[in-house]
Amino acid sequence: MATLVFLKNTTKVTSRRCFVSNLKGLLRAGECHSSPSPHMSSWSSRTTGVRFMSQGTAGRTSAGGRSSRRGALALSGAAAVTATAAVAGLLANVNHFQRAEMATVVPRAAEEDKNQEQGDILERCQGFMSPPVTDVAVLQARKGEMCTRMEMLIMETQAEFCKALEAVDGGTFTVDRWERKEGGGGISCVMQDGEVFEKAGVNVSVVFGNLTEEAAKQMRSRGKVLKGKDGKLPFCAMGVSSVIHPKNPHIPTVHFNYRYFEIEEEDGSKQWWFGGGTDLTPIYVNQEDAFHFHNTLKEACDKHHSQYYPDFKKWCDRYFYVRHRGETRGIGGIFFDDLDGPSQEEAFGFVKSCARTVVPCYLPIVYKHLQDPFTDEEKDWQQVRRGRYVEFNLVYDRGVKFGLATPGSRIESILMSLPLTARWEYMHEPATGTREAEMLEVLRNPKEWL
Amino acid sequence: MATLVFLKNTTKVTSRRCFVSNLKGLLRAGECHSSPSPHMSSWSSRTTGVRFMSQGTAGRTSAGGRSSRRGALALSGAAAVTATAAVAGLLANVNHFQRAEMATVVPRAAEEDKNQEQGDILERCQGFMSPPVTDVAVLQARKGEMCTRMEMLIMETQAEFCKALEAVDGGTFTVDRWERKEGGGGISCVMQDGEVFEKAGVNVSVVFGNLTEEAAKQMRSRGKVLKGKDGKLPFCAMGVSSVIHPKNPHIPTVHFNYRYFEIEEEDGSKQWWFGGGTDLTPIYVNQEDAFHFHNTLKEACDKHHSQYYPDFKKWCDRYFYVRHRGETRGIGGIFFDDLDGPSQEEAFGFVKSCARTVVPCYLPIVYKHLQDPFTDEEKDWQQVRRGRYVEFNLVYDRGVKFGLATPGSRIESILMSLPLTARWEYMHEPATGTREAEMLEVLRNPKEWL
Repeated sequence: MATLVFLKNTTKVTSRRCFVSNLKGLLRAGECHSSPSPHMSSWSSRTTGVRFMSQGTAGRTSAGGRSSRRGALALSGAAAVTATAAVAGLLANVNHFQRAEMATVVPRAAEEDKNQEQGDILERCQGFMSPPVTDVAVLQARKGEMCTRMEMLIMETQAEFCKALEAVDGGTFTVDRWERKEGGGGISCVMQDGEVFEKAGVNVSVVFGNLTEEAAKQMRSRGKVLKGKDGKLPFCAMGVSSVIHPKNPHIPTVHFNYRYFEIEEEDGSKQWWFGGGTDLTPIYVNQEDAFHFHNTLKEACDKHHSQYYPDFKKWCDRYFYVRHRGETRGIGGIFFDDLDGPSQEEAFGFVKSCARTVVPCYLPIVYKHLQDPFTDEEKDWQQVRRGRYVEFNLVYDRGVKFGLATPGSRIESILMSLPLTARWEYMHEPATGTREAEMLEVLRNPKEWL
Repeated sequence: MATLVFLKNTTKVTSRRCFVSNLKGLLRAGECHSSPSPHMSSWSSRTTGVRFMSQGTAGRTSAGGRSSRRGALALSGAAAVTATAAVAGLLANVNHFQRAEMATVVPRAAEEDKNQEQGDILERCQGFMSPPVTDVAVLQARKGEMCTRMEMLIMETQAEFCKALEAVDGGTFTVDRWERKEGGGGISCVMQDGEVFEKAGVNVSVVFGNLTEEAAKQMRSRGKVLKGKDGKLPFCAMGVSSVIHPKNPHIPTVHFNYRYFEIEEEDGSKQWWFGGGTDLTPIYVNQEDAFHFHNTLKEACDKHHSQYYPDFKKWCDRYFYVRHRGETRGIGGIFFDDLDGPSQEEAFGFVKSCARTVVPCYLPIVYKHLQDPFTDEEKDWQQVRRGRYVEFNLVYDRGVKFGLATPGSRIESILMSLPLTARWEYMHEPATGTREAEMLEVLRNPKEWL
């Protein structure tokens, strides 16, 4: 498993608008592979075509016993790569949101999407925070392949989300570009100690190579036997992930991650799956915010399957659970993994819809609370909640755990999800009837917001 | 393994001087068992009579294949219980330490020790922070047994260390007494946001009961087969542990933990072992402090075996290693586990010597830097180092990991080792030639201080 994560070679991109000259390059060895794998849909179960995974279980129970290790690899992908959702058209409007007028509609029509995706790759790259991880020439040559389409989506998602955050904060993201020796690399965008955001990180990574024999063996021991050519299993994992910690305790923390994993067997057939989710961690309960956030996600889900929102909402509550505290990390959202149906095209369409809800899910809430006054006590409560966030991320988050355990990982990209500051008070327990106690009650008993 | 840790039932002891009336009680079911187990010394290897354990390995390599799971249980003990070293005679003098005049001598003579241990139990209990976990009547009835002697030592260690810290801080420890449903309980002393200490926790726990079938099965699968009566293996685990985070960045954080574990087999024979250590985490390198700290430990070790200090110093550097950062947590000290020789009496004598070095190791350093001025930048660096401390404790510390994974654990006692505040800055790297860079250099390349 040691080959999935990133390396420490970091090059800071001083200006993201001057990279076009870097965009042309030679084809590299080891680039992504893609093609739909129709037989994979037979792995699906339930109405949603995916299986649930409870916390701490790397795999999943499968119909036919041919599955569970793939779940672990999907998570490894979530770790090795990391996750955004971009909505270009929405940004211009975001300043106009008023309290109680939060948008809940996913902006682009499918037709518009298709046209945009068919646009010139070089042109689309110019809006990114940095040149894509894969050389543009390679992307152009493999324009129709899923690896290319997904890399373009995660780069766009990163750019649009970063721009939306810069617009509200007034600050600028630092862009670090890093390479992974074994293949691929990433782009980490971080804004620290801004006007609005204490710490905002949006990370893209695209890694590829061969699974180690150990990883292949683990797969074999957990269910389906995967046969590689000469014992090697070429893989490709990519994703965009982000955690945003605002300063004002009335603005919630948000996290999202969208990822894709592909693995090639001896006979050339490919297994692929998507994973991801978006979830909110407020410091105080705000029913309206919670409704807006969940409803925006639900509308994106409903366009694809009526069971997606209810199923992935539950999965989210189960996954983001700080077991030793008996609390969820926040008020949830959606979380899914191992999505390999109903077709690759439809799964990608769903992930694209999700990625594009990030800005409309979150930015209206940021603008709404931008000027909210807060007390020292409210700030302290935020710091205690930040401590819980750290506990979840270091103790339970499978992506973080996998990343930290992997030699050669880019630790700073993995741990950029940690808040700038956090606090641990011994025996902290809010008094009954306070807004802090109200928040804890919700975290201890996850509720339906819609 | 689910039975080793503590429960949430907490009773706050409002005044620790008014508990004598509570000291008399009925004998409880399930109290500790003890007796030397001479055949156990055959487990020992090397000159020190113990084996090393590298980080992340729960067991150890044994001569004869009858060992490794016991190592895991020792660690469980370290977790379930938690760790102090008290030096009564030293406290009166501690105010008189001046810079460069730090005491390095372990105060009491062996003869004095023996007399003190033979003193009246009830009388000795009156100096504690709370009545001992085990009823005094039970302790009196089993005065000569190792469980009693160790419980008295850890209670004394807690009291003496807490009093030394109260004397320098001017604040008072909050004392929480808690019970474990399955048997035993603990006493957590915490001082938070004091004058000198940001957070100081000193915890005692004494837990007993039967190993679950699952735990017994795990033991069997890892080496030695342990046979219980009717499948049950009575055990007793106890210890004292402490982490002290001062406010001033020129005063280091200290941690120590001393513990004892005993398990009874079907034939009535008992396996027992000790573990523990004391280590220092400064924010800035201070050669004199480091020399004093290590030399005090070495003198305590040398009274028992000339290989103890060098071996346990190395073990400490290996154990307190934040692998994903490539840094040790601090400048080390000593760490050992699984100490079951050369005899129970001698092993206990060594642990007693170690416990009694805690105050002379640490308090002189506190007094020396009490008035040191510091800048905002130095405070920031301290906060970044605190973040690393959190990373070690949540990601690697076996005690914390075991505790968090155990249903019914008293989370607040396990996590009281976390600092009040911590900070994570993206890509933080001190400039070359700074005192911050000097500290990192030492953490990246552990050195010999003596």
